[in-house]
Amino acid sequence: MNVNEIVEKVFNNDKRYVSRAISIVESNNSVSTELLKELHKKTGRAYRIGITGPPGAGKSTLTNYLAKFYRKENKKVGIIAVDPTSPFTGGALLGDRVRMTDIGNDQGIFIRSMATRGSLGGLSKKTIDAADVLDAAGYDYIIFETVGVGQSELDIAKTADTTIVVLVPESGDSIQAMKAGLMEIADFFVLNKSDRPGSDSALTALKTILMLRDHTANDWLPGIIKCIASENVGTSEIAEEIKRHSDYLINNNLLKEKREENYKLRIKEITEKILQNELWSDEIEKFLIDSLKLVLDGTTSPYQVAEMIYNNFKDKNRT
Amino acid sequence: MNVNEIVEKVFNNDKRYVSRAISIVESNNSVSTELLKELHKKTGRAYRIGITGPPGAGKSTLTNYLAKFYRKENKKVGIIAVDPTSPFTGGALLGDRVRMTDIGNDQGIFIRSMATRGSLGGLSKKTIDAADVLDAAGYDYIIFETVGVGQSELDIAKTADTTIVVLVPESGDSIQAMKAGLMEIADFFVLNKSDRPGSDSALTALKTILMLRDHTANDWLPGIIKCIASENVGTSEIAEEIKRHSDYLINNNLLKEKREENYKLRIKEITEKILQNELWSDEIEKFLIDSLKLVLDGTTSPYQVAEMIYNNFKDKNRT
Repeated sequence: MNVNEIVEKVFNNDKRYVSRAISIVESNNSVSTELLKELHKKTGRAYRIGITGPPGAGKSTLTNYLAKFYRKENKKVGIIAVDPTSPFTGGALLGDRVRMTDIGNDQGIFIRSMATRGSLGGLSKKTIDAADVLDAAGYDYIIFETVGVGQSELDIAKTADTTIVVLVPESGDSIQAMKAGLMEIADFFVLNKSDRPGSDSALTALKTILMLRDHTANDWLPGIIKCIASENVGTSEIAEEIKRHSDYLINNNLLKEKREENYKLRIKEITEKILQNELWSDEIEKFLIDSLKLVLDGTTSPYQVAEMIYNNFKDKNRT
Repeated sequence: MNVNEIVEKVFNNDKRYVSRAISIVESNNSVSTELLKELHKKTGRAYRIGITGPPGAGKSTLTNYLAKFYRKENKKVGIIAVDPTSPFTGGALLGDRVRMTDIGNDQGIFIRSMATRGSLGGLSKKTIDAADVLDAAGYDYIIFETVGVGQSELDIAKTADTTIVVLVPESGDSIQAMKAGLMEIADFFVLNKSDRPGSDSALTALKTILMLRDHTANDWLPGIIKCIASENVGTSEIAEEIKRHSDYLINNNLLKEKREENYKLRIKEITEKILQNELWSDEIEKFLIDSLKLVLDGTTSPYQVAEMIYNNFKDKNRT
């Protein structure tokens, strides 16, 4: 089956082919690039929501809630779970699994998990590419569920139009979140399981930390929503807050700006990646390793090695 | 004056030319690369110490102490201050300035401040290059003093053989340090001003945070040293701990390994930087910006734009 046929099937939201297209995108070969080029024509319509936070914060429950909420509005929802502890990716308790089935069989919902384990980098690229597949397939909302650890997961969350950081009152949780760099990316916070002890002091801590946050030029101030997702308490406020943030972005012409900026960074990354792949061949990597001895004993400087590698690269292009 | 003459003067630790060489290195032009190539021959002998932490933690006082300590051992000390609040860089109170003069006039000490303001990236590269100048000039110890904020300052601290994170008991200090990613880079911690209230709970907090830290394969566990640097209480333990860490690195053959790894990353960075400079010409940047409109409306995919830029680059090299 050629690329155009797959593209046609994806445009018609044929789930089998949506799934297949994502697998191609994950494999990151030349077909993948061809496919993404074609699919791009129909992207840009989905609204992208990032849900991130520490393991056990209730991200999946919230994702589940939001998916059902948008389904009631007759919107289609794509879910990309990049979270080893998420029931979507299979790492969860039976209770979670059961809960998931009530959305898993819905024709208007597509769930895909992306492996974190064994993935040698490139995770954010693959995830964003997978979102483009879902976008092209006509999903109105795409939810990224990522556990907030590691740079690539931050990168994914950052590309969302609205990024939600979910925390729980447990001591040290907000500290951990800060450590992971989550504070900088949140458009708003959800304090889940807010009936637990320590909820009020967690709220105070979170507010304090928010004050430490650099205030950017724009006037959107991230709020904190308390909820008990498992009992559907406070969850509707979350959907409202997403709407409020999305309206804010659109009314201030910031959505377009944000996406343009994302595209710009993405194009730069793709270009530099192509170049780096060409540059760091096995042969050159070996040359680099071999040269370290000479650098260490002072014979050759790092700049000389870099120039040799660069010149070799240019010469290779010339032939 | 040509490069070889400057190199000769630097090798003889002619301070005027050491200073001039660092200025050339900061300007980052083609002379800089020539100079660094020549100077590299005599590098690798200095032991590099990174001192980092929040403003007001007492980094300069410690730097001052260590400089005097090594001078008593008849060693030469180069200080590179990348800290807008440091007295070395001129942002401090009169008291600090006065204190500094007692090392500033010592012939065996060289102090250089590197600008953070207005520096459009490349700070870590310039700082490491400047350290190479001091290394080639025969300074036995090079101390980097950086305020622990921002990626480039982390990058500088990471290249040191021993990295010290200085904190004070003030509430939230260790939290801020974590936020800034300081926890991951410390070979040991100094809790300065440990006579202040809250010192014990700060110590507990720090220990707790240390337990959260990922333990790497090696068996060096970062300790915490309490001191009152301004009164010289506990300071000698710091010099001892540096010695202990340096011995640990050398005896386990880790110093060589660490430096090799640093060189490897540095060569990769230099090479990719050369390539990126070639790639992102004004013309191409303009092309990229212009293309965003077409990407946003679905006409062109990010992959197509990246390929166009890459092909253009290859064509240019061919001619």
